[in-house]
Amino acid sequence: MPDWHLARGYRFTGVHCGIRPDPARPDLALLVSDVPAAAAGVFTQNRVRAAPVRVCQERLPSADARGVVICSGNANACTGKRGLDDARRMTAVAAETLGCRAEQMLACSTGVIGRHLPMEQVERGIRAAVPQLSGGAEALDAAAHAILTTDTRIKVFTRSLTLDGVEVRLTSLCKGAAMIGPNMATMLAFVLTDASVAPADLAAIARRAAERTFNCISVEGHTSTNDTLLFLANGGAQALTGEALARFEQAATGVCGELARAIAADAEGATHLIRIDVEGLRTDEEARRVAKAVAESALVKTAVFGADPNWGRIVSAAGYCGVEFEEEDLSLWLGDFLLYESGTPQPFDAAAASAFLKRERDISMRLRFTLGSGRCTFYTCDLGYDYIRLNADYTT
Amino acid sequence: MPDWHLARGYRFTGVHCGIRPDPARPDLALLVSDVPAAAAGVFTQNRVRAAPVRVCQERLPSADARGVVICSGNANACTGKRGLDDARRMTAVAAETLGCRAEQMLACSTGVIGRHLPMEQVERGIRAAVPQLSGGAEALDAAAHAILTTDTRIKVFTRSLTLDGVEVRLTSLCKGAAMIGPNMATMLAFVLTDASVAPADLAAIARRAAERTFNCISVEGHTSTNDTLLFLANGGAQALTGEALARFEQAATGVCGELARAIAADAEGATHLIRIDVEGLRTDEEARRVAKAVAESALVKTAVFGADPNWGRIVSAAGYCGVEFEEEDLSLWLGDFLLYESGTPQPFDAAAASAFLKRERDISMRLRFTLGSGRCTFYTCDLGYDYIRLNADYTT
Repeated sequence: MPDWHLARGYRFTGVHCGIRPDPARPDLALLVSDVPAAAAGVFTQNRVRAAPVRVCQERLPSADARGVVICSGNANACTGKRGLDDARRMTAVAAETLGCRAEQMLACSTGVIGRHLPMEQVERGIRAAVPQLSGGAEALDAAAHAILTTDTRIKVFTRSLTLDGVEVRLTSLCKGAAMIGPNMATMLAFVLTDASVAPADLAAIARRAAERTFNCISVEGHTSTNDTLLFLANGGAQALTGEALARFEQAATGVCGELARAIAADAEGATHLIRIDVEGLRTDEEARRVAKAVAESALVKTAVFGADPNWGRIVSAAGYCGVEFEEEDLSLWLGDFLLYESGTPQPFDAAAASAFLKRERDISMRLRFTLGSGRCTFYTCDLGYDYIRLNADYTT
Repeated sequence: MPDWHLARGYRFTGVHCGIRPDPARPDLALLVSDVPAAAAGVFTQNRVRAAPVRVCQERLPSADARGVVICSGNANACTGKRGLDDARRMTAVAAETLGCRAEQMLACSTGVIGRHLPMEQVERGIRAAVPQLSGGAEALDAAAHAILTTDTRIKVFTRSLTLDGVEVRLTSLCKGAAMIGPNMATMLAFVLTDASVAPADLAAIARRAAERTFNCISVEGHTSTNDTLLFLANGGAQALTGEALARFEQAATGVCGELARAIAADAEGATHLIRIDVEGLRTDEEARRVAKAVAESALVKTAVFGADPNWGRIVSAAGYCGVEFEEEDLSLWLGDFLLYESGTPQPFDAAAASAFLKRERDISMRLRFTLGSGRCTFYTCDLGYDYIRLNADYTT
């Protein structure tokens, strides 16, 4: 186990309940606070929202949440009224076993869309999981594994800081490797803290953190039906304010940034993590639109996969995102190679640029405009054969 | 040669001038009207417009165009002032050799972005090509080959109809196999007619035809810097009006539709042509947005490639395109399989649906909403290993 410095007052578990056929693959997790916690969330902007997303949205923000029950292997999305009943039932069974009200529990699901949950197995699984809840790193590791789908590794980050003389800790975990399009918040992510944060502050922090982290990554631009970011803060009555709250937000945004980058780095079939820095546009939102268009261009992503410094694809992707500029406003670097300066192509060593793309796993692109001070840093991945292989045969 | 019934008064040629290293691959084409023709065009909406696009936009609509000189293998895009000079020079050399004014000629380019044209070869090629202009099917075939890039076949369609007692003919050709994102008009396409059409009418017809055909196809959603649709009408003084003009528009839109479908069917590495019918939204534009989101989802396209009837990807793509609907408003068919009805998943034979996707090259999806009478038919292709192979190593 890594040496995680976990937020106090949380217990975890991850078990196999039978959503997945393979008994070796856990598919049910619980994250539970020992005491009622402030809770807030940010959710998919897809019109098609999974049943557990609707249940969370009904219940948040909250001042007395106890935890969340998560299943993987089945998204419980596009499942109509029965799906909604199933999601509520998951929280009710967890609450009953824990000894709290159903409304204090939240639910998340991730996996195949359009199938009903095997509720008999899920209910039995929840009842068996609750007594196994435990506070250590091993239990967190089990929960982090149980929420994965096509991810190749767990994504857990912790942080601690001192606020108003008290040590405060954050435990964060997420899953996500595809169906990642940044329109809030492209995966399941959880930030648990023992700080005391008012529900309204927590909601605002979650929204802003998502905007600056999870909404700045993309695998293939497909906004999921299940995207959920949940914050739980169980630190009790003396809520943070002022400078301490601002520093908490900074730390929370920091772990969200680490989770988001971990998703892009673990993207299905990816061989490169691509960082795209866009600067010099009128607003940050304009910079984000340019970065997103470049990040989601299949032609840009296949060029990186093939170590082909075909920079015209980057410039032309910037050109079709709806942000107004003239070519003369734009300069482009790939790593340290200046390829395009103020609208004019620059001579460069194509073989060396290609070798750079081959050699480095993490590569960067920089688009500099001359129109203002708006900027964005965005993460994506390349597009290669393995993405096709993994996605061409997912349900059958 | 196929039995093409060509529009009268046009001559063609396609030659190798040296843009491409392989002397067996033609890379320069001319399409010339014997007499001054009305001309109009529709062009890319990318902010980054290739030099020849800018030259065409300066000169159109026109009442006395003579033709167009086209080079393939080099897009002459992102090439700054020198690129613009080169595009103008192409028209000037062609005009000088033909005996007309440079302003009567148009230019198109397609190929790699960000490289300067080898103008010595291009000029020599144009001078050598003009004397070879000829009116037959063989010359058209040569021109249609010379404009191709990664296309696997030429795309030529002809049509004839009788208007006001006179037989009118249309000759149309295009190229396009990738960097196809429908935001006008995703390739080079040419419609030549011996009808008489006023320049303003021709411009309006071109715009509407593009909207209904080329803007309803997508390969990977990457709007090119060079997209051009040109119409030439050399039928002289008695311009069509009223019902005859409407029938001409219908025929012109018809050939544009055939060209557009041919592009989607020849998409790089594609194994399926996918037709997406969306109906029952508030407006046609809403239906187009839904269709485009489904068409451009890498997850939908890889599922089709893998013969995986993973319909949740289709519904969730519809959900993130920004069009408002509730799940209860939507029903979905894949071929004849009803998968989702009024927001509820339907039992279906997954093995039979997968066999259908494996068996048929042309497949269809139908999304039916209950919100109005807006509709759209959109064409795209699947996403498989060959798209990656073709695009991972294009310039190096």
